[in-house]
Amino acid sequence: MATRMKLKLKTVFVLYFMVSLMGLIYALMQLGQRCDCAEHDMPKDRTISRLRGELHRLQEQMRKAEPTKLPHKLAVKPAQPTIYIITPTYTRFVQKAELTRLAQTFLHVPQLHWILVEDSPHKTPLVSGFLASSGLAYTHLHTPTPRDRKLQEGDPSWLKPRGAEQRNEGLRWLREDRRGQPGADTQLGVVYFADDDNTYSLQLFEEMRGTQRVSVWPVGLVGGMRYERPVVEGGKVVRFHTGWRPSRPFPLDMAGFAVSLKLVIANQDACFDGDAPMGFLESSFLQGLVTMDELEPKAENCTKVLVWHTRTEKPKMKREEALQKQGLGSDTAVECVRQPVLHQACECQRDGVGVFFFFFFLL
Amino acid sequence: MATRMKLKLKTVFVLYFMVSLMGLIYALMQLGQRCDCAEHDMPKDRTISRLRGELHRLQEQMRKAEPTKLPHKLAVKPAQPTIYIITPTYTRFVQKAELTRLAQTFLHVPQLHWILVEDSPHKTPLVSGFLASSGLAYTHLHTPTPRDRKLQEGDPSWLKPRGAEQRNEGLRWLREDRRGQPGADTQLGVVYFADDDNTYSLQLFEEMRGTQRVSVWPVGLVGGMRYERPVVEGGKVVRFHTGWRPSRPFPLDMAGFAVSLKLVIANQDACFDGDAPMGFLESSFLQGLVTMDELEPKAENCTKVLVWHTRTEKPKMKREEALQKQGLGSDTAVECVRQPVLHQACECQRDGVGVFFFFFFLL
Repeated sequence: MATRMKLKLKTVFVLYFMVSLMGLIYALMQLGQRCDCAEHDMPKDRTISRLRGELHRLQEQMRKAEPTKLPHKLAVKPAQPTIYIITPTYTRFVQKAELTRLAQTFLHVPQLHWILVEDSPHKTPLVSGFLASSGLAYTHLHTPTPRDRKLQEGDPSWLKPRGAEQRNEGLRWLREDRRGQPGADTQLGVVYFADDDNTYSLQLFEEMRGTQRVSVWPVGLVGGMRYERPVVEGGKVVRFHTGWRPSRPFPLDMAGFAVSLKLVIANQDACFDGDAPMGFLESSFLQGLVTMDELEPKAENCTKVLVWHTRTEKPKMKREEALQKQGLGSDTAVECVRQPVLHQACECQRDGVGVFFFFFFLL
Repeated sequence: MATRMKLKLKTVFVLYFMVSLMGLIYALMQLGQRCDCAEHDMPKDRTISRLRGELHRLQEQMRKAEPTKLPHKLAVKPAQPTIYIITPTYTRFVQKAELTRLAQTFLHVPQLHWILVEDSPHKTPLVSGFLASSGLAYTHLHTPTPRDRKLQEGDPSWLKPRGAEQRNEGLRWLREDRRGQPGADTQLGVVYFADDDNTYSLQLFEEMRGTQRVSVWPVGLVGGMRYERPVVEGGKVVRFHTGWRPSRPFPLDMAGFAVSLKLVIANQDACFDGDAPMGFLESSFLQGLVTMDELEPKAENCTKVLVWHTRTEKPKMKREEALQKQGLGSDTAVECVRQPVLHQACECQRDGVGVFFFFFFLL
């Protein structure tokens, strides 16, 4: 009896052991793996497939259309440097509007890659959805500004520099993305820090495309001035026209310079100092990279304004708040009908099946 | 021996049970979470991004190439209604910046004709030069607002309607230009009043292109609200979501409707009443043209915001003024090498100070 009992126990245990071991092994295999993003992938695969199809169709059309009929200047120049635009952005009422018109500008610029960095602990669905339908080549990043470096409600905008962490995150991505690539340090490319509320003429991008180290130009409507600009004599920048502390190492606005990709790659530590005093943020990045003598003046020796430091008013929401108190406020789902859907598409559940089996076998 | 065996077995079993329980707990923790597919996404996102860029570049090339040289189905469809955009504008510091980004939007829209009407006794060189190099089909007009209807320095912006005379001048030109043309009253076309500081998504223009009489849609960030919009039931506009006087005949923002060209031509007297009380300017034009029942809702039955009533801050010029007193002010010829900038700040100073952080997540 005892032996039979023992046998039975042993059999049950062995069976249980083997079955649950299989479950455990399966679960362990799942743990180490990337999650199965098959479902998640489907829309992306479909997008890639659709884009490839579209591209192929257009290329066929281009091929059939006599090439000589295409204007000369449109011929594809493979060696054209890519312009990498790093844009910090943050959630606010006017954000989607600002990004909309900025994307419309960028859509006119060939060989442009937009690195949009959210000041947020996560990617927001609004920005994810916006970028996915933008038609632009982009990279979506995010990093939150530490609380102690953040402007508080009511603070004047100049109290703390904004966007330092986000620009640094963009630089980090750029360097990492190129790490290990052959010839990364000689790669053609230009890096420009474009805030989401400024206004950029299309000519500006062609001016900066040829940047060797650091190129500079005037910026309109900045620092309480009609414009600030580097003053050029004999093809060299000799001083700066600015209304405030011209003695700063580089009294330039963020919108007033671009840096070559190879300089960014060669100087892995160059970044923006979020603790820099007012007006010194640009200098904190540039002073390790270049000297005033090396600056390359663009925009007809810095005599043309091709970028403006425009600022968008914060909209007042008095009537909205009054209506909300009556339960008649605007439907918060209206503004972004598409976004929640796209948001779900971007994230997938960890493989629930494997975990379920593991759970089942253990019981 | 058997007891020892049983004991050993029991120990092993207990140990195994504990280990697998830990696994179970871990697995259960994982179950609810979304997995981070960021790493997994990167190559696909990059592919999509690259393909999009490539596609856009090709499309731009196709668009710029002479239409007659392109394959048949890409040729411009002549039956596509032209969108006539009437934009009042006035001299101020941010004017060139505003016109620059607005033109960049319009450059994406096929079959668009821009009627830019300056609030000025003459055409200014800045606007003339700007339009000439814009790459857009345009008509440049001007008409000054009578002094008694003009906002004075310090007046709040809502005190008097702005741009009424300029929009009427645009309408006058449209009607006159078509007078005597055969079939003018059946000509396909749409008229839209686009102020130079708003933000327009590209989709908006395709929504309005099919306008039969008067089409309507939501406008974001207007009237102290997240958005104002017509409320649609059974495909008809039944009322308006607005924070102020919903009883107005047409409580719509100027950016929230478009009118068919034939309706404008058929109603020669329809115009904007510059003496209309606050909020009634749009109604003064629309009430002779259409009834609420006839309005054509666009943008998915008025559930999508495709245009935003953004406003640009008036830049402060304190440092400029200080430098000017020392004879060190900015060179007024620099901003526009081609045309001297005329700047007469005629808008009122907004009380918005500095930059504002919003932590209302819009979704």
